[in-house]
Amino acid sequence: MGELGIDALLLSAGPDLVYLTGYEAMPLERLTMLVVRPEGEPVLLVPRLEVPRVREQPDLFVIEPWDETVDPIGRVATLTGGARRVAIGDQTWARFVLALQRALGDATFLPSSSVMARLRAVKSATEIDALRRAARAVDAIATEMRTRPFAGRRELDVHRELVERMLEAGHERANFAIVAAAGNAASPHHEPAARVIAEGDVVLCDFGGTMDGYCSDITRMFVVGEPSAEVRDVYAVLVEAQEAGVRAATVGTPCAAVDAAARRVIADAGYGEQFVHRTGHGIGVEAHEDPYLVDGNDEPLVAGHAFSVEPGIYLPGRFGLRLEDIVVATDHGPERLNGAARDLAVVG
Amino acid sequence: MGELGIDALLLSAGPDLVYLTGYEAMPLERLTMLVVRPEGEPVLLVPRLEVPRVREQPDLFVIEPWDETVDPIGRVATLTGGARRVAIGDQTWARFVLALQRALGDATFLPSSSVMARLRAVKSATEIDALRRAARAVDAIATEMRTRPFAGRRELDVHRELVERMLEAGHERANFAIVAAAGNAASPHHEPAARVIAEGDVVLCDFGGTMDGYCSDITRMFVVGEPSAEVRDVYAVLVEAQEAGVRAATVGTPCAAVDAAARRVIADAGYGEQFVHRTGHGIGVEAHEDPYLVDGNDEPLVAGHAFSVEPGIYLPGRFGLRLEDIVVATDHGPERLNGAARDLAVVG
Repeated sequence: MGELGIDALLLSAGPDLVYLTGYEAMPLERLTMLVVRPEGEPVLLVPRLEVPRVREQPDLFVIEPWDETVDPIGRVATLTGGARRVAIGDQTWARFVLALQRALGDATFLPSSSVMARLRAVKSATEIDALRRAARAVDAIATEMRTRPFAGRRELDVHRELVERMLEAGHERANFAIVAAAGNAASPHHEPAARVIAEGDVVLCDFGGTMDGYCSDITRMFVVGEPSAEVRDVYAVLVEAQEAGVRAATVGTPCAAVDAAARRVIADAGYGEQFVHRTGHGIGVEAHEDPYLVDGNDEPLVAGHAFSVEPGIYLPGRFGLRLEDIVVATDHGPERLNGAARDLAVVG
Repeated sequence: MGELGIDALLLSAGPDLVYLTGYEAMPLERLTMLVVRPEGEPVLLVPRLEVPRVREQPDLFVIEPWDETVDPIGRVATLTGGARRVAIGDQTWARFVLALQRALGDATFLPSSSVMARLRAVKSATEIDALRRAARAVDAIATEMRTRPFAGRRELDVHRELVERMLEAGHERANFAIVAAAGNAASPHHEPAARVIAEGDVVLCDFGGTMDGYCSDITRMFVVGEPSAEVRDVYAVLVEAQEAGVRAATVGTPCAAVDAAARRVIADAGYGEQFVHRTGHGIGVEAHEDPYLVDGNDEPLVAGHAFSVEPGIYLPGRFGLRLEDIVVATDHGPERLNGAARDLAVVG
């Protein structure tokens, strides 16, 4: 904060708050806000009825409850009186941002990512262990799914099975479980629905959750019965592209170059237009965070960056394919945290 | 907007967007934004890979996809060029608010609630029907729970049962299911945990979800075996307080007066300090919205306001009680949408 000339860091419900305090506040109309100043103890303002959910950590912060009829914005203004440059949590609701801007007069507001993104993007050994445990939990699920029936079940049924398995495997929360059959998989964020999976369907399963505070995220492909030659061929391109992305993810390589490495393989095979999203996103306490592997992001990878490598090829109305692992950049090269088999799983 | 002198309404993922378009955007780092100007067609900017999830409604808005490497903030600025007063979705993330403020120069930003809250707070007959259907669905669950075993199960097990039952009953989403036994219920927003429910425990169940776009929210109390005389007595106070709150909720009565009516009964019985939260919140597409039944809110109720009436009495370390129904203010007086029995349910 000193380096960046920031006088106050204000974090409401969101991943920065989780990262600094371990407290997962509910995003509510009642403000929760950690107030950090270069001098003085960090204060966590908490609506009184949420206080029992927070574990105070006196070495890190003190809790100050506020009552229903009090104005917490005024209290934040008092605590940060005179602040000129204020960093505010990226996901803080506009209603709070605007009220704080009014209360703090002519202070300049910056997103908290200006302070926090660099801290959060580079993972410690402990954090990488947590990501690895979460990755192994979903690896085991991906492996088990290879022996499960798909035909005759609705996407929604497989979705629920994935959610249930993530919780059983020790995730405290399932964040998403995309199950998209045949043409549905051409929508990368398809919501599982009543569609019944049929013989011949190519099924995309992309699922992840939060385990001990850190996120998992994996995509594997399943096909009911033998895949067509076309599906095999396109999938082979994808596997090669993902491998190229992972190989490129070395310390010092710009994020955009990792994206380009995966994209080139797909473009060379003639599917460039069908790879409609970036190659990957950072992962940690949040499912999507810095660094983003996307064209235009010239930030070089550093040791401890953790991110997905997940190229996709989507043929509207027909099928969609994606393959995703979480990878950590290390001084010894890229390390995949996911180890589940990457071939097209033939299921019944 | 004209009345309020607002030149542009900007809605990202959140309940206002759902209310106006029916589209439930995922809150992502990729911006989704509905741009509404007094002249010209509303435009919904959508990250290209989310487009398949949105149903375009040409009479309401057109979809404009944006690609990974494009700056959507710049596009919003172009669409709203020259706007002086901008209303922005209350739950829009700070990162987008700050970027839009930079891009739009010296425009004044207001929270979208300045436009939307009045629209959303007063429900149409169709909306009240939707709230009634959602209320009846959770009523049926509350009634069924009276015949279910509690003793020997973890809070988490009952929580999961409530979530499962809400989904089975036609909710597209379970928003919360608080299950708090004995002393745990003294934390009004307790997170269900591994605690095993025991003989004699008083168990608070507060659950709700979203069904056809509208929210349910109900609290009922269960006790394993016969309740103590003290629990009976305190609960009788609570029932009387809730009844007083509902009776007071007539058209023209200030919200604060409804709060006061419920609070007075509890205070008169000597538990004023133990009722640590407001009496209620509005409900609609969002679980908590205007109007809030809280001291200081002098806004009078109007016909079509829908809200919870949910006083509580919390005795730290011992037990907590709450009773909650959804109520609509009508020209014929307050109407409860929930009808499940309100007595303390004795369970096994």
